[in-house]
This record gives sequence, structure tokens and C-alpha cells, in this order.
Amino acid sequence: MAKSYTVAVVGATGAVGEQMLKILEERSFPVGELRPLASARSAGKKVRFRGEEVVVREATPDAFEGVDIALFSAGGGISARLAPEAVARGAVVIDNTNAFRMDPDVPLIVPEVNGSKVREHKGIIANPNCSTIQMVVALKPLRDRYGLERVIVSTYQAVSGSGWQAIEELNRQTRAVVSGEEPSCEVLPVSKLSKHYPIAFNAIPQCDVAQENGYTLEEMKMVRETQKIFDDETIQVSATCVRIPVVRGHSESIYVELKEEADPEAVRRILAEAPGIIVQDDIFEQVYPMPLEAADRHEVFVGRIRRDLHNPKGLHLWVVADNLLKGAATNTVQIAELLVSADQ
Amino acid sequence: MAKSYTVAVVGATGAVGEQMLKILEERSFPVGELRPLASARSAGKKVRFRGEEVVVREATPDAFEGVDIALFSAGGGISARLAPEAVARGAVVIDNTNAFRMDPDVPLIVPEVNGSKVREHKGIIANPNCSTIQMVVALKPLRDRYGLERVIVSTYQAVSGSGWQAIEELNRQTRAVVSGEEPSCEVLPVSKLSKHYPIAFNAIPQCDVAQENGYTLEEMKMVRETQKIFDDETIQVSATCVRIPVVRGHSESIYVELKEEADPEAVRRILAEAPGIIVQDDIFEQVYPMPLEAADRHEVFVGRIRRDLHNPKGLHLWVVADNLLKGAATNTVQIAELLVSADQ
Repeated sequence: MAKSYTVAVVGATGAVGEQMLKILEERSFPVGELRPLASARSAGKKVRFRGEEVVVREATPDAFEGVDIALFSAGGGISARLAPEAVARGAVVIDNTNAFRMDPDVPLIVPEVNGSKVREHKGIIANPNCSTIQMVVALKPLRDRYGLERVIVSTYQAVSGSGWQAIEELNRQTRAVVSGEEPSCEVLPVSKLSKHYPIAFNAIPQCDVAQENGYTLEEMKMVRETQKIFDDETIQVSATCVRIPVVRGHSESIYVELKEEADPEAVRRILAEAPGIIVQDDIFEQVYPMPLEAADRHEVFVGRIRRDLHNPKGLHLWVVADNLLKGAATNTVQIAELLVSADQ
Repeated sequence: MAKSYTVAVVGATGAVGEQMLKILEERSFPVGELRPLASARSAGKKVRFRGEEVVVREATPDAFEGVDIALFSAGGGISARLAPEAVARGAVVIDNTNAFRMDPDVPLIVPEVNGSKVREHKGIIANPNCSTIQMVVALKPLRDRYGLERVIVSTYQAVSGSGWQAIEELNRQTRAVVSGEEPSCEVLPVSKLSKHYPIAFNAIPQCDVAQENGYTLEEMKMVRETQKIFDDETIQVSATCVRIPVVRGHSESIYVELKEEADPEAVRRILAEAPGIIVQDDIFEQVYPMPLEAADRHEVFVGRIRRDLHNPKGLHLWVVADNLLKGAATNTVQIAELLVSADQ
């Protein structure tokens, strides 16, 4: 008989946590006991899992007693405080926040790219940033075949990357504008910063706090995490991260400079055969990925594949994925599956 | 006494035409007689100009009798057919469509960039594509100071670039989604193509028809027009053009490779002193351009200026402008002003 596991989901009532429960169920993950955890404020709420209601408990150190696998998605502060407590109690943590991603002791895993590294964990495994995940899934087969020189990426990011509050803000602002009222701004671009701007019918070129070098943290995550996932500090990534009024699904306009020339037709074939990728690419038939179509799907969608007009080693791609799924919950559960399969 | 001119506006009831009338009035252009022209369907409608109602006439060849300056913005087909008729009757045409832009006999003008070329016209002067205009305004001072090697641009384009129908479609779809209904799709991405996709809460990586090389016409316009405006076919531009749910204001994430290293602080200073540009750039204070803020303004807004992380000659910019104003009507009227000043 297959082993079953006690699985804690920290942030179970959040936008990503909700998807984690759904995916654990859909993919028949061997959950023996599900332990949904959240802040004191959300404790007592109920979530549905396999047709039953499960009461959400407060995420305290002792809540991890007996837990085998703990999936964290409740903000970096919670992870920093409670992930070590979970590990101390014997759990393996898969963390969806920025808290441990660049820690040299913590593997940063995208199963399609570097799944084998999952075994190197010392209790904590990190799930990369949503924007990074979909990009590296698309880049991996190209890097393997042609080698990767540099990447210039501009993102078109959905508000759900900032959680329920941001989804509600977009909905509220949209309703206000449609009714001819002034939209109120409280959450975006970054809730803890002092200035907030409307996202409805707007584009905001900031998805996280500023770093000393003038890039945002979101932009630097794409740089550093890509290098760590490929275990190659020579990959040159530069990013511009932008929030747009989309609920679910990040899009990315990616320019890749390869080490060798690449024929777009060969690239289409290589990507179509790669795990986790669906190629949607025929501009003449108006076929290309779009966030509304990618929402609620687990794959990474790639289209608009074309050679740079001037550099024969340059390639342009349009890459879309559901930021709550492959960008977060799906990738986390895939990591848990790798752990479990390593177990058996 | 200053001379005054009989000015025809072709497409006077359109999204751009409406702005042309407003700007002619605001900038006190020396209009003696205003002649608003449109399709037979719109003939008989009235437009307001300097506090008076003026009846819209059908745009026929004879409607250009006695016209000094004709501003066209009613689609490429109308321009191809009627601009030569207007010229034959003695008018100078300033055309806002794609009909003549690449014609070697037609100067393609952005006053801040190549205004002196206006005198080379043989009856027709072309106004570049909206996405091109705001980009070349931002690139001109950098090209002058550092030299320009290549440009990689990803756009975030407003629906008004496709006219009233597209604005109404976004509004209608948004109201439908907010009410829990299915949005209907008839206009975007390109009304004459067979497939239409929702733009509300979506991003569509197609802004015009496909070209043989797999790029869209909008993308190729940015390439060819930039080379023509700078009169330099060695400038390497590659573009990815994307429609997003914004009503007014195109945004562009631009990577520029210069011939020399550029210090971001010097770049800020150079751009701030350049005509038609407003620098909004302090990520630490959350200052950057956004389409909602740029709407109804005539300038080009530049921010997020930062050095590429790997190439010291590489620079990233975020450039926003009102596509109906600097991207269309303002630029057209500025060209008319150049014509008139050359006259006096």
C-alpha cells in the first residue's frame, strides 16, 4: 500500500493556498491528514478538501507536530518564522515565498528544469517566483539545445500575484470606473509602500519594492533565481516587471540570445516536445497564448516564436502561464510529488 | 496680420479626429475655415469648434476645393483614395494612416526628431504610427549623444489605437464581466480579421495583421518607420506589440544598446532637457510614468531609466504617451504648425 502523508498548507485561505488544496485533490496526492493553517484571523474558517470541510487552525509552531510535508504560502515573514519550526518538528517545508530562495542550503526547484536537486534539501525547498518559473520552463529546452547567452524580459503580470486583496481591488476599481466613480487605491503596486495607484485600465511598472540598483525586487528575483535554477551565474538576465489589469495569468515578452543560431521551426518542435509546455504559435491563424486562455491551466504556453530581425542568434517568445498554478501552487505540489517519489 | 488657412479634417468624428479639432482650437492654430469631413454615414453630424457647431460633410474629392491643409485620419483606404485628390486641388495633406509612410516621396515627420524634413514634401506628409512616435522622441536625444546600436521594445498598447469601436468594446466587455456575463468580441485584435478575442482582463499579443516574416504589421511599422525617421537603416529595432485593457496611453518597455556607455543620471538630465519629454523617474519614491496619468497630455513621459545589468552600453526605459495625442493628433497639428511657420 502506498504511504500517505500529513500535509500542512500554511496560508490555506489565500489565493495560492486555495489552489494548493484543489491541486492536491485533483492530482490525488497521497494526503493522509490535511492540516490547513492560517493567521489567527482566519483560524476557525473552513476549507473544503475531498468533499469534506476541514477547520483552519492557527499557524503556530506546535501546529506542525506530526506534519510530514508543509506547503507555505502566507508571506515571507511567516515563512521565515515558522518554516524552521516545522523543520524542527520533522516536516519537509516547500516554501512559496521569497524568504529562503537565495539561501545556498535551500534548493530552488522547477521540476521540469532542475527536479533532481530536490534531494539536496536540508528541510526546506523553495518554490521560485511566479515570473521566473514560467520563463525558465520555456528557456530550459533552448538552453539545452543551443546554449543561453542573455535574456531581456518584459512582464505583463496579473494582480492575483499580489493575493486576494489585489484581485478585490481590481474588481472594486473596475466597478467604480464603469459607474463613473473615482476608484480607491489601497493595495497596488505594493501594499506596504506609501503610494498606491489604480490598476483598473492602467499599467504600473512596479511589482515589488525598489532595490538599491534601481531595479525592483521582482525584477531582481527573475535575474538571481534564473541563475540559481540553471546553476549558471553567467546567464545574463535583465527584466522590466509591469502589473496590468488582468486577474490571472502572467505574460512575458522574452528576447533570448542563444549561443547558436536557432531556426524558429526547430524551436517550435523542441518546445512542443518539452515537459510542461504547450506551443500555441501561428500568427497567420491568430494563434498565440493569452492570459484569459491560460487561466486555470497547469502548463506554460509559448507563442510568437520568431527570429530577431537583426541578430540570427536572437529569438523572441511570448510566454504565458497561470501565476497561481504553474507560477505557484502547481509547481509546489509537483515538488511535493518529487519528494514523495524519492521516498518510495 | 497672420495668414489663416482652410483646414479639412478627414475622419472628424473619429477618436483621433475629435482630438485634432480640440488641439487646433487649444493651440490657436490659424484656422480660417474648418471643414470637417467623414464617411457618408457620418455626414450631417455636427462637431463643435471654437464654440460653434460645424456640419460634417462627406469626404469626396470635391470637398477639398479651396482647402489649404488636410489632416487625414480615417483609415488607410480613404487616405490612398482621397489624399491625391486633395493634393490635386492644392492642399497639403498630413496623413495619419499607414498609406504613404514608407513612400520615398513622403516625409515621415516627428517635429522633435526630424522637423526640418517637412519642407521636402510633394503634397503629402505622413504622421508615423503612434507606437513609433513616442519611442523616437525618447530615443532622439540618446542617439544624438551616445549613438544608437539596437532597440528591443515590448509595447503595452491602449485600445483607443483601434478607434471608437475598440473603446466601446472594452467598455462593453468590462461591464459584461463585472455583471457575470460572457463578453462578446467583434473588434479586437483586428476588426477585419476572422478571429476576435476579449480584451477586458486579457492581453493580446497582436495589434495588426501578420506579415510574411511572422511579425505583425504594427511591429514592422516600428522597425521601418524608426529607420526612416532617423534616416539610418543601420538602426536595429525588434518589436513585440501587445494590446492591453487600457483606454488611452501606450506604454513601452524599451531596451536600447548605445554606441557608448551612458550614465543613467546623465541620461535623465539629457532627456529632461529634450523637447516634448517629461522625465518621471524615481523608483524609490514610486515615481514613473503610467498610462492613466499620461492620458490627455501632449508630452512623452520617460521613467525606470536604468543601466542593463550586464551590458554597460545597454539601457532600459519605460516610455508612456497618449496615443491619441502625441501618438496621433498632437503630432499631426505640430506638423501643420511647422508647415505654417515655413510659410511665414
